[in-house]
Amino acid sequence: RYSVFGGGKRLRPALVLWTCAANKGRASDALPAACAIELIHTYSLIHDDLPAMDDDDFRRGRPSCHKAYDEATAILAGDALQAAAFEMIAQRTPDPSLVPALVTELARAAGSRGMVGGQQFDIDTNLDLTPERVQLIHDLKTAAMFTAATAMGAIAAHASAEEVRRMTVYGRSLGLAFQIADDMLDVCGTAEELGKTPGKDAKQRKATYPALFGLEESRRRAQRLADTAVGALSALGRRGDRLRAVAEFVVSRTH
Amino acid sequence: RYSVFGGGKRLRPALVLWTCAANKGRASDALPAACAIELIHTYSLIHDDLPAMDDDDFRRGRPSCHKAYDEATAILAGDALQAAAFEMIAQRTPDPSLVPALVTELARAAGSRGMVGGQQFDIDTNLDLTPERVQLIHDLKTAAMFTAATAMGAIAAHASAEEVRRMTVYGRSLGLAFQIADDMLDVCGTAEELGKTPGKDAKQRKATYPALFGLEESRRRAQRLADTAVGALSALGRRGDRLRAVAEFVVSRTH
Repeated sequence: RYSVFGGGKRLRPALVLWTCAANKGRASDALPAACAIELIHTYSLIHDDLPAMDDDDFRRGRPSCHKAYDEATAILAGDALQAAAFEMIAQRTPDPSLVPALVTELARAAGSRGMVGGQQFDIDTNLDLTPERVQLIHDLKTAAMFTAATAMGAIAAHASAEEVRRMTVYGRSLGLAFQIADDMLDVCGTAEELGKTPGKDAKQRKATYPALFGLEESRRRAQRLADTAVGALSALGRRGDRLRAVAEFVVSRTH
Repeated sequence: RYSVFGGGKRLRPALVLWTCAANKGRASDALPAACAIELIHTYSLIHDDLPAMDDDDFRRGRPSCHKAYDEATAILAGDALQAAAFEMIAQRTPDPSLVPALVTELARAAGSRGMVGGQQFDIDTNLDLTPERVQLIHDLKTAAMFTAATAMGAIAAHASAEEVRRMTVYGRSLGLAFQIADDMLDVCGTAEELGKTPGKDAKQRKATYPALFGLEESRRRAQRLADTAVGALSALGRRGDRLRAVAEFVVSRTH
């Protein structure tokens, strides 16, 4: 409860709900998947902050979970939240026939070929910082979960395979833009704005766009990705407005 | 791979398959759930061995995951295995209509009201060692996963609600007997027999039956639980033979 209800933008669950709505689905059909992805996201933050990982004492302006409690509790809290995410989808999704696809999307995005795999590459500072490596880490660590969010929203709306595919183009581009913006904030932001310690990426030799390309090129790159994301929404007409606004919000964070 | 294919009795997946067979199901229907519960079990061992938890350097006769690699890798390996477990059920279960029930069973047993909750109580050595507390910890930490194994096996066999319920009585009693036997082995066993460091429970003031009641009473208690487990199999006739053999095996470990 300390970590789940400790603030946060709720961007990923909003993407699930708004992608569902944009594809003419009902919010109630997507709500369990929306809650589930926030539970997964919260667990990942708890584990990322651990001393053996990024070793961050603050998160969202408060002591991180292992500082408020202890390391064992933080490990177990993350573990329990991951289980709760899948229980939420399996037990609460109004149309049970969607459960296999929803669980598959979320589990794949969260696992070794998604978020966890990206985190593993990210903490391995022995590897060279190449553009390809940064791209791979961003794809796995961040874009996979954004893609899962928009795919789940479309699936919950009973969208066609082609519509689901277009939503994943939107989700992936948005996720990559978001991660570049996040890395830029780590360079430019204050602890107060971030709610966590700034400048840690450079100190920990993390794979970031600003470190490789500088701030200006990173900003251009984020804008191009946001444009790609918006381009994937063209078939939605006015129903895509909220998703377009999200893309603008993500890039505006870099200014 | 290091931890999943590092030995182990494979007792929980065997219970899934054999409970399925005992209820006239096909092994192929239960195989994804069987794999999934072993993945969850393996993740829990990796995290339990971490320095912040039980701090054990050996598991199944080899260095534990964080000794063979490092702490961050062990945390992430456990996280990835949990995701892989739910992906396995959602993607591979031959009858997709069973996925909601199977994921719910496994996630509930693995989460805060099951295995993880039990582990949290178990590491809190500030609490008094009472029989009620030991029973609660055993129920959450161990019996919940055994119950999930036998419930999933019955569900995969399309068993009736009453049949599933009887299998959960078997699974819970077996799990409690198993945990008592495990605690007794920690007192009596050698490092070679155990594949891990013996005598750690007493040193860490863990909640165990031997500590509360002594070895003789613990052995009697385990036998009574195994008898209860076997009693729940009466309707199965000869088809229950393998499950009866498991109950005998569990208690024989205490000698």
